[in-house]
Amino acid sequence: MDTFKITFLPENITLEAEAGERIIDVASKGKIHINASCGGEGVCGRCVVELKEGQLQASPGLYLSDEDFQKGIRLACRSKVEGPATIFIPVDSRADASFFKKAAQAEESYEVEKLDPMVTRLEISVAPPSPTDNQSDLERISVALKAKDVSDNDIELSALKRLPKAARDGDFKLWISVFDELPLHDPTRIPHKRILSFDPFSDGPLHYALAVDVGTTSVWARLINLQTGEALPSVGDLNAQIAHGEDVISRIVFAGRQDGLKRLQNRVVDTINGLLERYEHNYPNYRDRTYLMTVAGNTTMSHLLLGVEPKYIRLTPYVPAASSWPSLKAASLGLQLKPQTVLKVFPSVSSYVGGDIVSGVLASGFYQSSELTLFIDVGTNGEIVIGNKDWMTCAACSAGPAFEGGGVRCGMRAAPGAIENFLYEPETKKHYLGVIGGVSPAGLCGSGLINVAAELFRGGVINKQGRFVEGSSPLIRQGEDGWEYLLSPHAQNSVDHDVVLTEIDMENLIRAKGAMFSGYQTLVESVGLEMKNLERVIIAGGFGRSLNIENAITLGLLPFLPVERFTYIGNSSLTGASMAALSGSVWRKAFEIKQSMTNFELSETPGYMDKYIASLFIPHTDASLFSA
Amino acid sequence: MDTFKITFLPENITLEAEAGERIIDVASKGKIHINASCGGEGVCGRCVVELKEGQLQASPGLYLSDEDFQKGIRLACRSKVEGPATIFIPVDSRADASFFKKAAQAEESYEVEKLDPMVTRLEISVAPPSPTDNQSDLERISVALKAKDVSDNDIELSALKRLPKAARDGDFKLWISVFDELPLHDPTRIPHKRILSFDPFSDGPLHYALAVDVGTTSVWARLINLQTGEALPSVGDLNAQIAHGEDVISRIVFAGRQDGLKRLQNRVVDTINGLLERYEHNYPNYRDRTYLMTVAGNTTMSHLLLGVEPKYIRLTPYVPAASSWPSLKAASLGLQLKPQTVLKVFPSVSSYVGGDIVSGVLASGFYQSSELTLFIDVGTNGEIVIGNKDWMTCAACSAGPAFEGGGVRCGMRAAPGAIENFLYEPETKKHYLGVIGGVSPAGLCGSGLINVAAELFRGGVINKQGRFVEGSSPLIRQGEDGWEYLLSPHAQNSVDHDVVLTEIDMENLIRAKGAMFSGYQTLVESVGLEMKNLERVIIAGGFGRSLNIENAITLGLLPFLPVERFTYIGNSSLTGASMAALSGSVWRKAFEIKQSMTNFELSETPGYMDKYIASLFIPHTDASLFSA
Repeated sequence: MDTFKITFLPENITLEAEAGERIIDVASKGKIHINASCGGEGVCGRCVVELKEGQLQASPGLYLSDEDFQKGIRLACRSKVEGPATIFIPVDSRADASFFKKAAQAEESYEVEKLDPMVTRLEISVAPPSPTDNQSDLERISVALKAKDVSDNDIELSALKRLPKAARDGDFKLWISVFDELPLHDPTRIPHKRILSFDPFSDGPLHYALAVDVGTTSVWARLINLQTGEALPSVGDLNAQIAHGEDVISRIVFAGRQDGLKRLQNRVVDTINGLLERYEHNYPNYRDRTYLMTVAGNTTMSHLLLGVEPKYIRLTPYVPAASSWPSLKAASLGLQLKPQTVLKVFPSVSSYVGGDIVSGVLASGFYQSSELTLFIDVGTNGEIVIGNKDWMTCAACSAGPAFEGGGVRCGMRAAPGAIENFLYEPETKKHYLGVIGGVSPAGLCGSGLINVAAELFRGGVINKQGRFVEGSSPLIRQGEDGWEYLLSPHAQNSVDHDVVLTEIDMENLIRAKGAMFSGYQTLVESVGLEMKNLERVIIAGGFGRSLNIENAITLGLLPFLPVERFTYIGNSSLTGASMAALSGSVWRKAFEIKQSMTNFELSETPGYMDKYIASLFIPHTDASLFSA
Repeated sequence: MDTFKITFLPENITLEAEAGERIIDVASKGKIHINASCGGEGVCGRCVVELKEGQLQASPGLYLSDEDFQKGIRLACRSKVEGPATIFIPVDSRADASFFKKAAQAEESYEVEKLDPMVTRLEISVAPPSPTDNQSDLERISVALKAKDVSDNDIELSALKRLPKAARDGDFKLWISVFDELPLHDPTRIPHKRILSFDPFSDGPLHYALAVDVGTTSVWARLINLQTGEALPSVGDLNAQIAHGEDVISRIVFAGRQDGLKRLQNRVVDTINGLLERYEHNYPNYRDRTYLMTVAGNTTMSHLLLGVEPKYIRLTPYVPAASSWPSLKAASLGLQLKPQTVLKVFPSVSSYVGGDIVSGVLASGFYQSSELTLFIDVGTNGEIVIGNKDWMTCAACSAGPAFEGGGVRCGMRAAPGAIENFLYEPETKKHYLGVIGGVSPAGLCGSGLINVAAELFRGGVINKQGRFVEGSSPLIRQGEDGWEYLLSPHAQNSVDHDVVLTEIDMENLIRAKGAMFSGYQTLVESVGLEMKNLERVIIAGGFGRSLNIENAITLGLLPFLPVERFTYIGNSSLTGASMAALSGSVWRKAFEIKQSMTNFELSETPGYMDKYIASLFIPHTDASLFSA
């Protein structure tokens, strides 16, 4: 097979590739991210690259004009290697990791009632062997173990391998690290402790856990000192599965391909391994003393991480393989951790209300409060929980990708170059842009879309139907997709086109916010209450970070309530995972939360469709919902 | 690094080797066995090969005369590659696998009281999911599981991965394979069932287990149909660890080298994998339905198979890392079995009374009988158990390698060419040889040594001290090591020298049999009994197969008792492992046996040394022990 050198710009990374390989796959092998909402199926047109030198086997196809094609524009998923080539990846085709550095600085604080982690280190001391007492090392310590409620039956082989040396290094005084397997939904099972490791007593008591949030887009990890409860700064990165699709549906489709599931599992494992690597510098050899990893992710991410068939999550009636998971060895998945590290994956409620939401509810604490609370995580899949300490209902709604920059003409993720803030002056009909990273505009991110739409609505440029008001602004014009508003002209941009907001973008936005709002309504009404009864609204997830509450209310994405009732709690999935790493009691609560949530399949819920249709206005057909 | 082609004769196998590699290692990579009692340390002189063509980096050293060296004789452990070479491995330097084919034909029969294997297949049937009932697959079946005392918490991830498809293939009627983890020495632990696999109902109920006996010299496996209880013919091979030493001590020493433990583990895993392969032809895909593997081996073999440090087995006070082992996944050791196969390793009593003896006692059944029984496994490490249903004591004695052909001038394993049977006619002073395989003599195996020595003793050629009686035979002569008896002259042999029995061989034999006999005495007297009280003697192990009882009594290796009290029970370690594979109750008994045996460290037992010294005669200093 012929191989050729393919160089990617601006990084200037050169990779070997075989003739016939797709450029998107070549990039992916070199860990260079190229956006592809569709997972490389050739149907989203987002993986645009520029051929600077050389030749690729490609044709214009659906997405590219002949003119663009002549200029060297290609789709990375539709171009195959046929010789050496140099390829430039423009900013709006690439995922940017710099965001993660900033986000990590804004950690949420949390605390747990007590430090009772699922893994503890116990000190054991026994008499050394002698000619008249030469039973095996394990038998020797078994009485001391039993005194601490630990069976010598429940032991990892990897621990046993360490026993002879650990015991002799400290003259039969040593540490044992014990995992407390909690009986959760099965009360017939008595708890028992499993020995994870033996360590020389001279090592000292320091030990660690890791909390991980596996999101569809990004993955976050946090190292936690189990001795002090101190959480070290979290680290994040894009989920490398993005090369195979940006949303859970395209991942599930990809998993159905030959080796697709294995490849997706490897991707996310690689991503987590990359994060683990980042602690190595400040905490050398921390892995030797890491005994626990708690992972929260949505239902699909949990399946993919564990390598379990996700197919039926996507097919009606939307059945996951499992909603709670056995304890595992982290290393068995390929995670670069020692054999003693136990992996606990958060339980989920349903196919679309996953462990990340259970973890988020745990972190928010509202499940212990009497206040009627709405908990939301806005995204392509929007999750909603309503309730208080006495009851909880939940649902997921398919908002579509608008909030993440998808299905939007100039949409992009919240990365440098994305227009995020927007101010419109009705008097002068001028606007001002706030761009992430302070660079030239490249597109419009989800929160930017909301801010632009709300300002233009308040300024009279957009009407209740989400249409542009004729003559209201000189920036309105007829574009390829119909009417559009010019946000930033070509000449000022880092991309080779105007950045615009189209009426079709507005339609997508209205459908997305309508799906969320009718979801809240359905849950609130299912328990005989009204929206105004909501005492608190908790917004979780990455998107919520940059969400302007007032603008979101203006559009009807958030309910009409006093602003002080809203709270943003950041990456509550990571926070919940961190709390569970520190405390077995908290982990137990995650199961209580999972068990106590009543899941609504909105598509099967009478009345949901009517509510959805009624919400396709700004802010809503029923004005009384958005007035005092 | 330069590489060269090294050809091994008579197989005519050519391997690539790097300059500087030892010939013994090159052969071993090609799975060509060359004997090396010392594990390739250059101290036993058994790995003799002949350089036919080419060049090796070598010097005569201790074991080779200059004359032999000139002829091309080399030690494989002391010769390094420095160019292409052709090497012949003579019959007395090689282990022969043909033995295993014959031995497998002589299977011992056994039965268990009931067929209650630790792994069972249960049928589960539940209603399929619907839009109003879309809980996860695992939750869906959890009630049906609970009805069978199975928790949905205790589940292998590999099983969960199979659940969605297995469930849908049979419309939610499926098989679950469940492992019953028995609470053994820890009565505080309730038993629980662990789900190993889900399978489509259409697969049918057939399932298998494997029983394995891991011996220092050879490894045997047997496939067992758990549905019918039928045991399929066993298969055996040399333990490939032999390349690193023939006895447990040299293996332990080798394990202490860089990567030594890992290499020994890989060797025995490879050996077992080779045996597993042999069932594939007649039972294709049997591995898909194999759920259990029971393994019996001596304490060192158990450590090495599991990759656990054996170092302290060899050092006083002889402490193993463990004497019972957690349940494992067979695949985690590199065994080519599916993830569902559970590995159970027999518990051992002490560093030198291992799981093979526990399994052997289990197979013999004497632990349930009121008869006072002596159970022995004769070998380099001779194990002795004395007792009945009420009590058992055990000990191991270092007999030395004489019974396995080691430390004997013309010693070899019981392979073709070994003199095994021997008849001496005092009248004519002639003898007749019986050679394994009916080929020309190459040496003397352990049982041959006993037969030769006993016949010559009865014929007046050897006296009570084990010395040759001057003038008793024209075949007595002065040799390199002193007096010797010519068994077979050079011209009649397949090897390039006379086959002889020397006085030094006799000394080794007497020490070996003395170690065994004084062991029986010590155990019998420790409970206030005498040798004549023994109602039954059970002989186990490969060596026992060819042991002539009368000759062994003549020499004082076996006690002076009527021949009808002796029974040979073959490879009782494999038989016990097979029984345990068929029945969890039997497995439980293995633990009762382990627990009930009192271990004597003979070297620490007062009086043992005196008994040993007294036994260094034929048959014994105390003639009353060998007369009615």
